[in-house]
Parts: sequence; structure tokens; C-alpha cells
Amino acid sequence: MSSFKVIEGGVLAARDYVAAAMNCGIKPEALDLVLIHSKRPAVAAATLTQNRFRAAPTFVTGEAVAEGFVQSIVVNSGNANCATGEQGLADARRMGQIAAEATGVAADEVIVCSTGKIGVPLPMDKIEAGIPKLAQMLGPDNADLAARGIMTTDTHPKACAVQFEVGGTTCRIGAICKGAGMICPNMATMLCFICSDVAIEAPALREALSWCVARSFNCVSVDGDMSTNDTVAILANGAAENPVISGEDRGAYDAFVAALLHVTQDLARQIAFDGEGSTKDVTIQVTGGKDYVQAREVGRAIARYNEFRTMLYGQSFNWGRIAAAMGAGLLDIDPRTVSIKLQGVLTWDRGRIATYDKDAGAEALKSGEILVEVDLGQGEAEATVWTCDLTPTYIELNV
Amino acid sequence: MSSFKVIEGGVLAARDYVAAAMNCGIKPEALDLVLIHSKRPAVAAATLTQNRFRAAPTFVTGEAVAEGFVQSIVVNSGNANCATGEQGLADARRMGQIAAEATGVAADEVIVCSTGKIGVPLPMDKIEAGIPKLAQMLGPDNADLAARGIMTTDTHPKACAVQFEVGGTTCRIGAICKGAGMICPNMATMLCFICSDVAIEAPALREALSWCVARSFNCVSVDGDMSTNDTVAILANGAAENPVISGEDRGAYDAFVAALLHVTQDLARQIAFDGEGSTKDVTIQVTGGKDYVQAREVGRAIARYNEFRTMLYGQSFNWGRIAAAMGAGLLDIDPRTVSIKLQGVLTWDRGRIATYDKDAGAEALKSGEILVEVDLGQGEAEATVWTCDLTPTYIELNV
Repeated sequence: MSSFKVIEGGVLAARDYVAAAMNCGIKPEALDLVLIHSKRPAVAAATLTQNRFRAAPTFVTGEAVAEGFVQSIVVNSGNANCATGEQGLADARRMGQIAAEATGVAADEVIVCSTGKIGVPLPMDKIEAGIPKLAQMLGPDNADLAARGIMTTDTHPKACAVQFEVGGTTCRIGAICKGAGMICPNMATMLCFICSDVAIEAPALREALSWCVARSFNCVSVDGDMSTNDTVAILANGAAENPVISGEDRGAYDAFVAALLHVTQDLARQIAFDGEGSTKDVTIQVTGGKDYVQAREVGRAIARYNEFRTMLYGQSFNWGRIAAAMGAGLLDIDPRTVSIKLQGVLTWDRGRIATYDKDAGAEALKSGEILVEVDLGQGEAEATVWTCDLTPTYIELNV
Repeated sequence: MSSFKVIEGGVLAARDYVAAAMNCGIKPEALDLVLIHSKRPAVAAATLTQNRFRAAPTFVTGEAVAEGFVQSIVVNSGNANCATGEQGLADARRMGQIAAEATGVAADEVIVCSTGKIGVPLPMDKIEAGIPKLAQMLGPDNADLAARGIMTTDTHPKACAVQFEVGGTTCRIGAICKGAGMICPNMATMLCFICSDVAIEAPALREALSWCVARSFNCVSVDGDMSTNDTVAILANGAAENPVISGEDRGAYDAFVAALLHVTQDLARQIAFDGEGSTKDVTIQVTGGKDYVQAREVGRAIARYNEFRTMLYGQSFNWGRIAAAMGAGLLDIDPRTVSIKLQGVLTWDRGRIATYDKDAGAEALKSGEILVEVDLGQGEAEATVWTCDLTPTYIELNV
């Protein structure tokens, strides 16, 4: 049976990782440049945005992880380096090269990320001057600074770390992320960096990351707007010196995946619940699906329906909008087999309106934690999706 | 060459149509029940929502138009009769039967529509008492009352009428619609009723309606939320006594389609620009598409991107969000062939940022009319999509 334990340490909880953060001048004052470094070569994997206007650094990151080994991650906030054309791609490569030189690794061993305003060239002079200074500041105690350095309008830094056993050896996973937020006032993206000291083969690492991202970050919706820069990257440097995990050794692999799933789901919830302007933590549990993807997509259809999210802000018990939202997903569902509960109150019961206490329902909506439970009545698959309510503050943050 | 002329008369502009509207008690005071009647049998067609939680009346309407002839349309506002199960379907059928008896037609010759709150049983006593009275009030001068009777939070009634020639005979099309709005506070849907006195074969009428809806109502996005009750219905009663239009006679068919396209596009724009909380009329013109559907879907991807719509409300010249929105549509586009103009200002020119005057761009965004022009650089197809900005008032209307 898989087990893991939540620990302190954030993105630097695993062995042989160091980090640093600074203000290099992209933002007026706040931290805007972060370096994370593994003291030894790490196998790496990443999942990247599918947006057709992908930001330049996502191409550089895709090339770096394709090579298999990565040692450094360089990230700026305040500028997305997106819709910046050939110059943007050259800038992203240059940003990686400078970080490679500053940390003593090969140029193709650096992951590059940016988050911030779209359509503005990266201020390369500031980044070129900043990175060498940042490399001098690398240390094991900067996990919180790194978490803060990648923030945009997140209201708090987001980190999670766990430890678990592989063949009697203790391994660790540490991670940070930022959510879709805006500052200055025009920025957005989700980024997540995961540093593990587990020893694992690259194909197994890629498979584990894809599986966990599908069940964590892909289950989050804040405003339904896919960013141009979304990146989840993982390094595994083997410093734990466990027996190397392969896809064949399911016991060790499953222990790693269980730990990684906890980290990614914990961070995904943090992103959803800290969505711009959020006043409600919203969890949508879908059961009775034909398969996982159907169940998740029903949840996502609900999560992205604006009128569902405004209703939660208004605390009005208008459960019919959950039905409308499910139906608008154009998925293979049948109202005659569907059940809907809002805050534990059964409202729609396989083809008919349930008898419910509307006043009790309205009272329950005053909570800061909202639970929607939908049973599709088609099979055994389940999925959980997280979001927040849609509020006037969201609009103020995004003008 | 096709030509048509805009005329007065709203939904009753064509010959041999009458209408009436009343308050039957679903809403506290406002008009909430409408009857539209053709004095002679009319061929009919309709396009209906694809929402999987389709409202009960859309099934009744689908059956009525499948039979080919329709003479009456009965509509209530204030209650959507959606997510109401078997009882809701029985209620919708009963509503049609009462309207059939009151207007002296067969039960399967009545189109039934509802718009309003979801998940609440229809107050059949009020509707049963109201319809016979309404039938007594049918008259040729009630076009404006009918337009008002189907409104929810629309800020003004929406109507359009045209006349055109077929084989030397003058024919007319009159229509009304309502947009996605909320009252009380929980209502939404778009409905459109089109009454023509043209003589036309049923297959040609269906083809014309589908073609025009694809280029009008399907090009509108207010909040991206597909309703459960959306219905566009057309009657053609032949009272103009023109040579009957068939699909083979392209000259006459094209004249009819050109007139119908004007009516549907005019009403579609009215819906988009009167979207909940709107302060900007937003037109998105997409050119250079491979085909019409690709061009339209790129436009719709932009129109439903929340951060694009909040930016217009805030009047910030952050054109990069148009790029992000296009990319998020996951369509086959390539930034290297795409151009983007916002208020006539070229910002992205086939792979690179254009040289533009940001202050002039910001000044141009103060206008109440916003124009986005996107050239995909792939072919000759074009599409136009209409929307409005996303404002705090939208949220207030939808809590």
C-alpha cells in the first residue's frame, strides 16, 4: 500500500536543490526573477500549454526536457514573452544560455519560463544583468523566496512537499506553483515546478507527470481562459539514492505516483481556491461516469459556466444552472440518469425535481466551501474539479 | 441581384399574422404570455438548443415543425420549464393543446417556448387561464406588445422586418427576438420568432433557416453559456401569393435568403450588443480563413475569452489577450500568418509585433463600438462575430 507524509521545505524539500529570487527591475519592486538549481543532473519532464499562441519560453522548455536531463530552472514574472515573434524566441534562448553559464551547465539543460503581460518584448538587459547575481545567491534556505518570486496576483505563495519510501529509502518531492492572477494590471498564467530527489527513469517520470497533471492541474478552472505560458515541470535528481524506479516495478512506481498526485492535487486546489477575486472554494465531485475523462469534462463544463459561478457569489440556491451547465458541455449524459446535489441537498433525482428545503439550501450556500455532487448514473468512473466563484473583483483585476 | 428593403411592422409585418400579449401572473406585473397566430397554415422550421438538459417545450416545438405545418406560437417568460422531468413535458404538451384549442388549429400545429428560471414547475393554472383570454385579444396591431412580452432582462424590445420581391410579387419577413438576460434574478435564453408571408417549400425553408442561423445567432456570444431553451422558429404562410419558392429556383431562393439573413443578423447584433451589463458593442471580423466554420470559430474563441471582455470594459489596450484568446480556441492557426488589428491599429503582423501608437490605441478604446479584425492568412473565408464587454453589472444581474 502506498503511503507518504507531508513535510516542510517547499520546493527545496528534496536533497541537493538550491534556489534564489530577486527583483531585477521588470516589476517596480517585487521579486521577479527566480533560479532553481539541482546540484546534480536530473531527469526531467514537463507538460506545456496547448495554446496556439504559445509563449516563446515554452518552446525552449520543451526542447530542454526532450533531451532528458535538466539542472536549472530560470523564471521571470512581469512579462510573458508571448506574442513576441522571432525576437521573443531568441530572447528565451538567450535567457536559458545565461542561466546555463551562470550555473555551470549546458545550455540545453535549462528550463525557461515567463509569466506576465503578453505582447511586450522581454527587457533582456535587466534579465542579463540579473541572472549572474542570482546564481551567486543560490542556497538551500530560499524556498519561500522562490515561491514568492513566481507570484503575480496570487494572494499567498503556494508550496507543497512530501516524503515517501522506495525500497526502504526515503525520497522527497517539493514543489511550488502560481495561479492565474493579474497585476499591473495585465498578467496571467499557471506555473508549477517540482523538484524530487527520487531516482527514476525518464519514461516513467514522464508517464507519472502526465497522469498526475490530468488529475490535478487539468481539473482546475478559474475563468476558462487557457493561458499561453502554462508549464508544469519536474526534475528528479536521484540524490535519495533509492533503487531506480522504472515503469516495470509497479510497487515503487505507484508509491512515487501517489506522492506526486498528492503534491499536484494540493497545489491545484490552492490555485483554484486562490483564483482572482474568489470568495468561495468550490469542489465539484462527479461520480457514475463511463470513464475518467467523461466525468472530468462534465465537472469542467460546470466549473466554466459563468452563470453557475456568479450564482455562488450571490449565494442564490438556483441549482438549475448546474443542470444547464452540465448540458452545455455537449457530453453524452442523460438527465434521466443524472442526480445533482448542492451543499448536500438533493435537487435533481434521475429525471425529476427532488423534494428539498430551499431555505436550508440557501443557508448552506453562505459557507465559504461549496460542494457540488453530480452522479451521471452511467458507470463507476469518478473525477473531482476545483474552481472558485465569479465576482466583481475578478473584473476589477482584469481590466 | 438580391435586394430587400427594411420596413416597419415587427413580427406582424407580413400578411395574415396576428398576435397578443398579457400578464398571466408568472411575473408580478410584466407581460409574460404571448400568442402569435397565422390565419392560414404555414410551413415551419426551427433550430433548437443542443444543450443536454434541453427544456421540455423544445421537444414539443421539434415535433411540431417536423410535421411541416404550424399556425400558432405560444410563449411564456418567467419560467423556463427546464429540468422539470416528465411533468414538465406533459405541461409543455398541455400548453400547446390549450393554444391549439383557443386558436382553432390541431395540437401538432403549435410551437411552444418558455424562458425564465430553470428547475421550477410551470404554474399551469395561470397558463391555462391565460391562453383562452389571450386568443380573444389576437390582433394585427400587437407587434410591439409581442416583442415586449418575450423579454426578460433585455433593456429594449428587439424586432426587424424587410420586404423583397419574388417573381414580381412583394413578400415580407417580420421577426422578434429576446436575448440572454436575467430577472428575478434567475432567467436566461435566446428566442426568435420569424413570420413571413412568402410561399416556399418546407425543405427550402429549413435549408434557408439553418444557413442564416449559422451566420447570425450562432455568431453571437454574450457569456459563452449555452442555454437550455434557445429556439429560432420561422413560419411562412404563403399569403404573399408569390410563385412558390423551391430549392431549385436559385434566383427566388437567393432573394429570400438575402432578406432572411439581414433579419437574423440584425437581431443577432441586437442580442449581442444588449448583452447583460454591456457597455460596448463588439464586432469581431475574421478574414483569411480556410473555410467559414474555421473563421467563425476563431471569432467565437475571442468572443468568449473572459479576459478579452474584461479588458474592453477597462479600456486597456492589452491586445495580447486577443492573441491568447485565438490560441486558446485550439484551432488550426499559425501566429506566423496571423494579423491582429484592434480599433484599426495593427498590433500583430504575421509573426511579429507591429509598430503602433499605444496611446492612440487606448484612446480609441474609449468608443462604445469596438472592432477587432483578425486575418488568419490561410484562405479566403470570412466570418463576423458579435459580443459585448464583461462588466460588474453582468455579475450583479446573475447572482
